[in-house]
Amino acid sequence: MKNILIASTSTLHGSGYLDYILDDLAILFNGIEELLFIPYARPSGISHDAYTKIVNAAFSKININVKGIHTYKDPIDAIKNAKAIFTGGGNTFVLTNQLYKNNLIDVLLTVIKNGTPYLGTSAGSNICGLTIKTTNDMPIVYPPSFNALGLVPFNINPHYLDPDKSSKHMGETRETRIKEFHNFNTQPVVGLREGSWLEVKDNSIILKGHLTARVFEYNKTPYEVPSGTELNHLK
Amino acid sequence: MKNILIASTSTLHGSGYLDYILDDLAILFNGIEELLFIPYARPSGISHDAYTKIVNAAFSKININVKGIHTYKDPIDAIKNAKAIFTGGGNTFVLTNQLYKNNLIDVLLTVIKNGTPYLGTSAGSNICGLTIKTTNDMPIVYPPSFNALGLVPFNINPHYLDPDKSSKHMGETRETRIKEFHNFNTQPVVGLREGSWLEVKDNSIILKGHLTARVFEYNKTPYEVPSGTELNHLK
Repeated sequence: MKNILIASTSTLHGSGYLDYILDDLAILFNGIEELLFIPYARPSGISHDAYTKIVNAAFSKININVKGIHTYKDPIDAIKNAKAIFTGGGNTFVLTNQLYKNNLIDVLLTVIKNGTPYLGTSAGSNICGLTIKTTNDMPIVYPPSFNALGLVPFNINPHYLDPDKSSKHMGETRETRIKEFHNFNTQPVVGLREGSWLEVKDNSIILKGHLTARVFEYNKTPYEVPSGTELNHLK
Repeated sequence: MKNILIASTSTLHGSGYLDYILDDLAILFNGIEELLFIPYARPSGISHDAYTKIVNAAFSKININVKGIHTYKDPIDAIKNAKAIFTGGGNTFVLTNQLYKNNLIDVLLTVIKNGTPYLGTSAGSNICGLTIKTTNDMPIVYPPSFNALGLVPFNINPHYLDPDKSSKHMGETRETRIKEFHNFNTQPVVGLREGSWLEVKDNSIILKGHLTARVFEYNKTPYEVPSGTELNHLK
């Protein structure tokens, strides 16, 4: 019954918040009048209210009203009763920490598995994977666990970035980091470039958008998959 | 009695491992014949043996023999008896996890405070700060804590990178990440560019190298400090 959209980013360079994906969101959230927004990742540390306002402005273009989970007395009930859910980007550690703190991991998993349409972007996509161990974010808070929702049988690396061969900076490339990940973990990692997303319907996981994605499997050479590829075989 | 060198990186683009700082290391480790190396951060996932070999090759140029801590039966004793210690770069989470696992945090802190000369580069520098919450690394393992040695009264951000204004990538800049850090933490952060290091002697902390460093204090506009600046007032 899953009906999920896992996007690399909320925003493409030069366009407005969620603009590039709004047509697809109108389909995902067809018939929905009110969306529950989880603003916990707080990009640049903005407040839950300020973040929800930005999201509301975007969704008003497809006639959907947005309510922040922080405005509910009981966030577990808010998730149980939601007609649709969106978790926005920001810091994955802050997001994960708040989800655990509010005891929302189990209920979120249950309602999404039972068919509540879900959108994640960036940090909100990271938590759809098995763990948050392939986030790009700074670990500014210490969450009780790195385990995530596991809505797909692999990890997500959003904002996937190809190595810049002209760089003189000696920090690791994204590919090096994911290679390091596979010294300690065996699950696949899907590197989603900005503008790409995964469409998850029941057991089908399909790459969408115009770009290829980079797949990292344990003990295999990384490879590219074109848009339209079915990824549910990854395990 | 502290005698510490906290370097942003081990290697500058286009030169060999530790080459740029070797003259200063000859002073830091003056009279030392054998160095204890902590290879736990495992850059690119290389083995402890392979990593120690690289470090040994560099230190042989200043006539210092290098022994990896992994070759000792009792790593706590190895640290207690070490004449000098170097912790190399790689993944800060892997390094921190292994230090906790082997119960090395307390003993490391004790010997360094008592005067055992210490060199850290990259991940090995991150652990000199109050916490590892300003590392750039991917959280590929879950350490029991993000608390670090606290040899300086602030956090380190090694490989500090200025925002690339021409970039069309929508991931956060380093400055944005550190700003987010300060929504949840109040300690200062010193962004050390590649080629910079901190020289810590007793209570003096001086910025060295040719470049300025970027200092981020809670609720203040970030600012640059020139080489030679005394940083022990940061708190």
